[in-house]
Amino acid sequence: MLENLHQYNIILGSNSPRRKELLAGLNVKFEIKTNDTDETFPDSLPIEEIPLFLARKKGETYTLEKNDLLITADTIVVVDENIVLGKPRDKENAIQILKMISGRMHKVITGVSIRSLEKQKSFHTITEVYFKELDDEEIEFYLENYRPYDKAGAYGVQEWIGYIGVEKIVGSYYNIMGLPIQKLYKELKNWY
Amino acid sequence: MLENLHQYNIILGSNSPRRKELLAGLNVKFEIKTNDTDETFPDSLPIEEIPLFLARKKGETYTLEKNDLLITADTIVVVDENIVLGKPRDKENAIQILKMISGRMHKVITGVSIRSLEKQKSFHTITEVYFKELDDEEIEFYLENYRPYDKAGAYGVQEWIGYIGVEKIVGSYYNIMGLPIQKLYKELKNWY
Repeated sequence: MLENLHQYNIILGSNSPRRKELLAGLNVKFEIKTNDTDETFPDSLPIEEIPLFLARKKGETYTLEKNDLLITADTIVVVDENIVLGKPRDKENAIQILKMISGRMHKVITGVSIRSLEKQKSFHTITEVYFKELDDEEIEFYLENYRPYDKAGAYGVQEWIGYIGVEKIVGSYYNIMGLPIQKLYKELKNWY
Repeated sequence: MLENLHQYNIILGSNSPRRKELLAGLNVKFEIKTNDTDETFPDSLPIEEIPLFLARKKGETYTLEKNDLLITADTIVVVDENIVLGKPRDKENAIQILKMISGRMHKVITGVSIRSLEKQKSFHTITEVYFKELDDEEIEFYLENYRPYDKAGAYGVQEWIGYIGVEKIVGSYYNIMGLPIQKLYKELKNWY
């Protein structure tokens, strides 16, 4: 599938093992190249556009060769419409973050940028995630055993806490893992 | 976690590797014992109650010992409110089924029964799944490479076709895989 891209050298510009696994699930060949990007954004940016802005910004740090097709992404977790939850700094901060998503809905927003020398396309996808009330024992057990310090929102939906905590989602499940793979496939299929 | 069940011998009454994986994700010890069950149900049964009826019926085929806690489940796929899609008989039937879920919403309903000598509890969970239009090439590729002949609705959401096809879900993702693990955890936590 995606025969239209056979001439391209597909590059995933991300360190995330979840993104790597999801892209691999499309049965396309790709390589991983990561660049350090300054992840700041203008204060004036509407929250929903932050991941799109950062996905594009990450993409622009690469120097592409002919036939390169670069995919970059950024994911944020938002509660209360305007509080952005990033990766936890330490255990105390992870506890705070998990208490903020406990017993309510939050949004996971992923921005994706696809770039070649000729063309650039980007989009973002929003998924609503409804968590049950997490009790202190559950939060403690999760942090001790899974150490989600590399994850925005301090949780991985595909881990124990997603099993016991997520009552309902509205939108793409894979978007919560960090890559809206169905929409990415659609864009890649129509790329050329 | 689930220390309240330490005295129980938990039994999963299902051959499904997905159910096994999901229950294992709760970090509880369990064994698998399967029984053949006649999966017929009364014609008069409302469609949404079929999985609940069959989960209970499967559970009742077991002779339990003291401290056994048996979990059984049944999953169906429903389109158009009243067409139940089972496991495909053969490739031709799988193509028909996939064309029926292409470009629209279907419901995945799982019934779960939990049984010990003292108590029985059962519930069902519904998830809406929205598929993009699948083209013939995609259906052919999926059937040849994944052979979903053991799956109601002829697809596994965690496989390639779920990656490329599922635009949106409303409800529990794990329910689509065959076990609404969050609700099961909640019931087990409150069991005793």
